[in-house]
Amino acid sequence: MKAGFVGLGKMGFSIVRHFLECGHEAVVFDVSQDAVTGLAEHGAQAAGSLRELVVELASPRIIWMMVPAGKPVDSTIGQFMELLEPGDVVVDGGNSHYTDSMRRAVELAESGVRFLDAGTSGGLEGARQGACVMIGGERSAFELVEPILKDICVDNGYAYLGYSGSGHYAKMVHNGIEYGMMQAMGEGFNLLSSSEFDFSLEEVARVWSNGSVIRGWLMELAVRAFNKDPKLDYLSGRIADSGEGRWTIEAALEQEVSIPVIAESLFSRYRSRSENNLSDRLVAALRHEFGGHAFSGKQ
Amino acid sequence: MKAGFVGLGKMGFSIVRHFLECGHEAVVFDVSQDAVTGLAEHGAQAAGSLRELVVELASPRIIWMMVPAGKPVDSTIGQFMELLEPGDVVVDGGNSHYTDSMRRAVELAESGVRFLDAGTSGGLEGARQGACVMIGGERSAFELVEPILKDICVDNGYAYLGYSGSGHYAKMVHNGIEYGMMQAMGEGFNLLSSSEFDFSLEEVARVWSNGSVIRGWLMELAVRAFNKDPKLDYLSGRIADSGEGRWTIEAALEQEVSIPVIAESLFSRYRSRSENNLSDRLVAALRHEFGGHAFSGKQ
Repeated sequence: MKAGFVGLGKMGFSIVRHFLECGHEAVVFDVSQDAVTGLAEHGAQAAGSLRELVVELASPRIIWMMVPAGKPVDSTIGQFMELLEPGDVVVDGGNSHYTDSMRRAVELAESGVRFLDAGTSGGLEGARQGACVMIGGERSAFELVEPILKDICVDNGYAYLGYSGSGHYAKMVHNGIEYGMMQAMGEGFNLLSSSEFDFSLEEVARVWSNGSVIRGWLMELAVRAFNKDPKLDYLSGRIADSGEGRWTIEAALEQEVSIPVIAESLFSRYRSRSENNLSDRLVAALRHEFGGHAFSGKQ
Repeated sequence: MKAGFVGLGKMGFSIVRHFLECGHEAVVFDVSQDAVTGLAEHGAQAAGSLRELVVELASPRIIWMMVPAGKPVDSTIGQFMELLEPGDVVVDGGNSHYTDSMRRAVELAESGVRFLDAGTSGGLEGARQGACVMIGGERSAFELVEPILKDICVDNGYAYLGYSGSGHYAKMVHNGIEYGMMQAMGEGFNLLSSSEFDFSLEEVARVWSNGSVIRGWLMELAVRAFNKDPKLDYLSGRIADSGEGRWTIEAALEQEVSIPVIAESLFSRYRSRSENNLSDRLVAALRHEFGGHAFSGKQ
């Protein structure tokens, strides 16, 4: 097959390489000329603009976007509205908010262009070797794109989940669960490391990766991390977040569903970035005010 | 090799069957004569008492206990103290508290008997086909038992973690992490099911089991559960707990380590068993008292 790819960052670049290795043809565009040239060296056809990319594809076109969520997606789609023809399919493989995807599907439908929201998981290794993709949108558009999914995903690693928005909604919840699993692992290994025993955390993560109830890819990644440094001293414990955990909690508020562990996992990340915060100082101050308890002075 | 097995419940029974299939000899005892007879049909040598079991093994004996945590373990070990000889090894493969295991190692050492605490994970399937075992105790005793571990565990599925107690401590933390992972999954699937989309939860669990960041055995078990019943209506949401989550939190209190997600996961289980509790009634009552807010009357 031949498809267009827009957005050649870490994930997009790796997916296109995988796609090319499966024997397909890719026309690629990115605002970074380096990324385009880099992929051309791997056999992709370079496009100098979205217009050039569209011209190189026959109808019904399949264009896979891997563009940062928010304005970059709207801007790209805005340009496609003037370039694409009825029947063409635009796939958003990025981490867009599901309500944006629902809106964009309606907007593109006005020009007869079909839109798929494709939540993509599996990290960089997945993009390079076989990903996991959750698809929402019109089923006919999914069927057109399915041969590509079959190749860029691991076996059984893609699913059509329903109408527009369901792919990115599922990806959002996936990330919420991921926050909770990672936080539980963080807490558990912290407990091991502060116990009276002299655990090799790498050895524990290794044995838990084989045959245990909690085995899985995250545990295998923990083996790799502890192998680099048994105490993980090469990094700080200030944990960033890229928005999907927050969206999961917003969805829970909207739906009035209780998700204490997922919410606590995000709040633990916030806390990891707010040492010596006012909450802690107030609690220490109140202990002092009512009970005369000692407090640690300002450093 | 030839080894003795005491405690032929679901886990013990399955481990012995696996052990026999690996070409070893097992002498087995249980308070339930049915379990002993059942395993004899699979080729085990039946013992009518612990004494009979001990007589059938040559020194240094290896005896694997799979007995319920607490008094049954102490009672079994008490009897072994009078039967075993210096150099023999007793393995506790059950879910004992790590401080009990530390105490028992000292008690058995008085008779020269070596003790290993073996935290066992992987569920019934693991016991039957290949488990994950975390070992604490004397290294020499571990080395004596290692050929058995090699056979009853999956590849790379056992580890010597340090002195007595470390095996059961690691198993305890494993279960704490398991509570957190399961709670995060519960919350995420609940969010999916209460969303505006019409997700097949089985299909979502399936796609997440293949290539996603959160893939792992628990996700595969979720596929199986949703396959039985898409809404899990065959069971109630009252979740039991068998103690290891509570021990993990007690250890965190002892070590003054923060484990909010693991703690919340246990509290979510308590909450699942306490509908219409006083906490909820008090909050509703206070809303009414200060703001005249309506409340739901007693059913």
